[in-house]
This record gives sequence, structure tokens and C-alpha cells, in this order.
Amino acid sequence: MNDQIKPTERTKLRRLPKRGALDRETIYKILDEGFVCHVGFTIGGKTFVIPTGYARLGDRLLIHGSSASRMLRAMSDGIEVCATVTLIDGLVLARSAFHHSVNYRSVVVFGAASLVSGEEEKIEALRAFTEHIVPGRWQQVRPPNKSELAATAVLSLPIREASAKVRTGDPVDAKEDYALDVWAGVIPLKLRADAPKNDARLKNGINPPSYVSNETEPKNQINKRTVESL
Amino acid sequence: MNDQIKPTERTKLRRLPKRGALDRETIYKILDEGFVCHVGFTIGGKTFVIPTGYARLGDRLLIHGSSASRMLRAMSDGIEVCATVTLIDGLVLARSAFHHSVNYRSVVVFGAASLVSGEEEKIEALRAFTEHIVPGRWQQVRPPNKSELAATAVLSLPIREASAKVRTGDPVDAKEDYALDVWAGVIPLKLRADAPKNDARLKNGINPPSYVSNETEPKNQINKRTVESL
Repeated sequence: MNDQIKPTERTKLRRLPKRGALDRETIYKILDEGFVCHVGFTIGGKTFVIPTGYARLGDRLLIHGSSASRMLRAMSDGIEVCATVTLIDGLVLARSAFHHSVNYRSVVVFGAASLVSGEEEKIEALRAFTEHIVPGRWQQVRPPNKSELAATAVLSLPIREASAKVRTGDPVDAKEDYALDVWAGVIPLKLRADAPKNDARLKNGINPPSYVSNETEPKNQINKRTVESL
Repeated sequence: MNDQIKPTERTKLRRLPKRGALDRETIYKILDEGFVCHVGFTIGGKTFVIPTGYARLGDRLLIHGSSASRMLRAMSDGIEVCATVTLIDGLVLARSAFHHSVNYRSVVVFGAASLVSGEEEKIEALRAFTEHIVPGRWQQVRPPNKSELAATAVLSLPIREASAKVRTGDPVDAKEDYALDVWAGVIPLKLRADAPKNDARLKNGINPPSYVSNETEPKNQINKRTVESL
């Protein structure tokens, strides 16, 4: 599965090319770890960037359309989009102001998104969204009914023109600055989970399921990504 | 300072308007807490969404342009942009698949960004970027020199046409689903800091400064935002 995606004029990194990656394994790992993508599209010469939920299903990015009906209408007309997912991994503190940076991993996907239609496809998409939030959740919840499926707006974007960009590791200072008496290094950042909070209207006697409250092995129980539970 | 920004055709929320906010206090708080913005712009009919560093300086968003020279060239030509900052606060687990959601706070700023020129202005911008990463850092590090200032690419976007969108709290389930024996609630998520990691080339005898390693009061020491240290 770790084939390389062909670079295009848009996905080729001109600046700092060593930070770029075009292999599907790197790209999929980043997409699977994020929770929100930023979808950009242009209508009447105006560019919009809308944060919205998504999930990866094989080699497609499924975008939750209901949070952006304007986006949805635009895209169902066949407008090209750019969907970007960014994970923040750390603050990079250099010895000089100029070389301060952020460690991150990001993926950019370009293409024409198509509207998902048909009940089977929509159920598959809602399953992907639900499992993307918390793996194992789908089998516990009430499946979508007819009217929910009718109200479900999903866009499918093929992961065909895409690339990843990763900055990792220590600051890179100017040669002479390594002699300065200034602390330099990285403050690692991670999106972490607190203990689950019951819905105020939760029925008595229902406890959080093991996939959200497993305390014997608190790490990576929220999902199979790298989000960590405390 | 908490004046309201006038809504426009682009910033008016059509869907779920109760999630929207146009007051500068809400908008600035979100902008000050994030580390990366997603800048959208269109060149030759193609939309790009690029993650990049930024800082707020008064009523302007300063965008770190060096990470996107393509963006920079486009914007210095006066192309309109949309800059979006999104903070993820939690996973919302409903009793039905359909009502699963994410708690988040986001800000969208529309406008024409201008290139920052002049040494004074660029120093001010580098100071803002550095202090945005870790407040208190600027006075500890080597200030920018002439060649760094020449290499510094910054865009300034007035926060004039902007809005915030916030989803918070419990899932909202269909009325009849509250009777189901399904756990529902929120898994709070937060970007948290681990202990600072020294640069591999750090001079002997230099310890992390108090603003990155204060262990007597571990919370909110990384910066004055809501990022938490462990």
C-alpha cells in the first residue's frame, strides 16, 4: 500500500523539499490521526476555508458536508477544492528569534469532490465518520434512519493529487549562535484526552464504555491514533 | 475592546447561527490560543490551503509568509485570502451515529493581505511571532540581524471581516434516543505540552527557562493560553 503519489505542479515542494513526502503510508497516517480538515474552495472569486469533520475510506477522503452548505453547493457543482489536515507536534525554540518554528505534520489533497448519494454509500460514510471519531463506536450506537440519511451531506474526494509535509526535531540555528547561552529545544505538544464527561441527560447506571475509559492502559485507548488519554 | 464586527455576506452564519460570534473578544481569544492558521487563496482558478504560523498584533493578523512563497507572491499581488484558525476541544459521542460531532472553536478572517516591509515593521512582526509561540521568549533570544530581516516574509491581514464559530457542550440527540442504553457524552481534548526536550547541541549547564519548565504550577506555563504542561 505504500506506493508513491505522483507529484504535480501543485504538490511539488519548491521550498525545503526534504520536508515533503508523497508516499501513501505517511499521508494516510496523518489523515487518520486528525479530527478536522480545512477545506478551501472558491466561489465568485472569493476563497473560503472551512473547518469540518472528515474520514479516510481507502483512497478517498470523505468530507462532512453539512457544516458547510455553501461549500457543499459549490462542490456539488464540481468546483475544485483543496483539503488540508495539520497536526501540531511541538514548539521549536531556537537561539535566535528568526529560527523559531513549529513541528507539525500536514497533508494537502487537491481535486474535484463529488457528492455522495445513495443510501448504502451514505451509511458507509456515516460509519467512517463515527469510527474516525472513536474506533469501535459504530456498533454501539443507533444506526442512521431514513430521514437522517436524507439529511446527510457527504463529499468524496479522491486522494490522487496529494502530498505530506513534516517538520520534526530540533531547531536549526545559525552556526555562530550555538555558542550563545540561550536555552534551545523543543516543547512537545500533543492533543490529549481528559476523562470522559457524561452527558447531563445520561440514563442512570450507564458507564463510559472501555474504549473511552480504559484505565489499565490509558494511552491510545481513545482511538487507535496517537491521541492520548490522561 | 469587545466591540462587534459587522457581519457580511461571507461571515453571516446561515446554518446553526447560534454557534456564531462576531465580538472581538471571542475572536481574539481563539486567535491568540492557536499556533497554526490555514490560509486559503486562489491562483489561476486553483485554490490552495496552506498551514502556517501567525500572530495577532492588535487588530491585524500577521501571517508567516516564508513557509509559502507561492502564497506570498500571490498575496503580495493583492489577492484576497481567507485565514482560518481552529481549536479542537472534544469529541462529542451521541447515542446515534448521525449526531456524533466535535467540539471546536474557529475563526475565519477574510481580506486582502499586504506585504510587511520596512525593518521596524518586520522586527515588530518577528517579535509577535516569537512571543506568540512562548510569551517571554523575545527578550531571551538573539534579535534578528539585517540579513534575517531581508529574508523575513510577513503578510498583514486586517481583522475587519471576521467571525468565530463555537460548538460546545453535550451531544444533541433525537428526543426518543435519550431512552437508549447507550453511553453518551464528551471526551475533552486539549493540546498539552510534555517536558521540554533540550536541543541535542545545547551548551552544557543551560537549563530550560522557567516559562517552559515551571513545575510548581504546571498548568498554563507554556504560554498564557490554555495549552497545558503535564
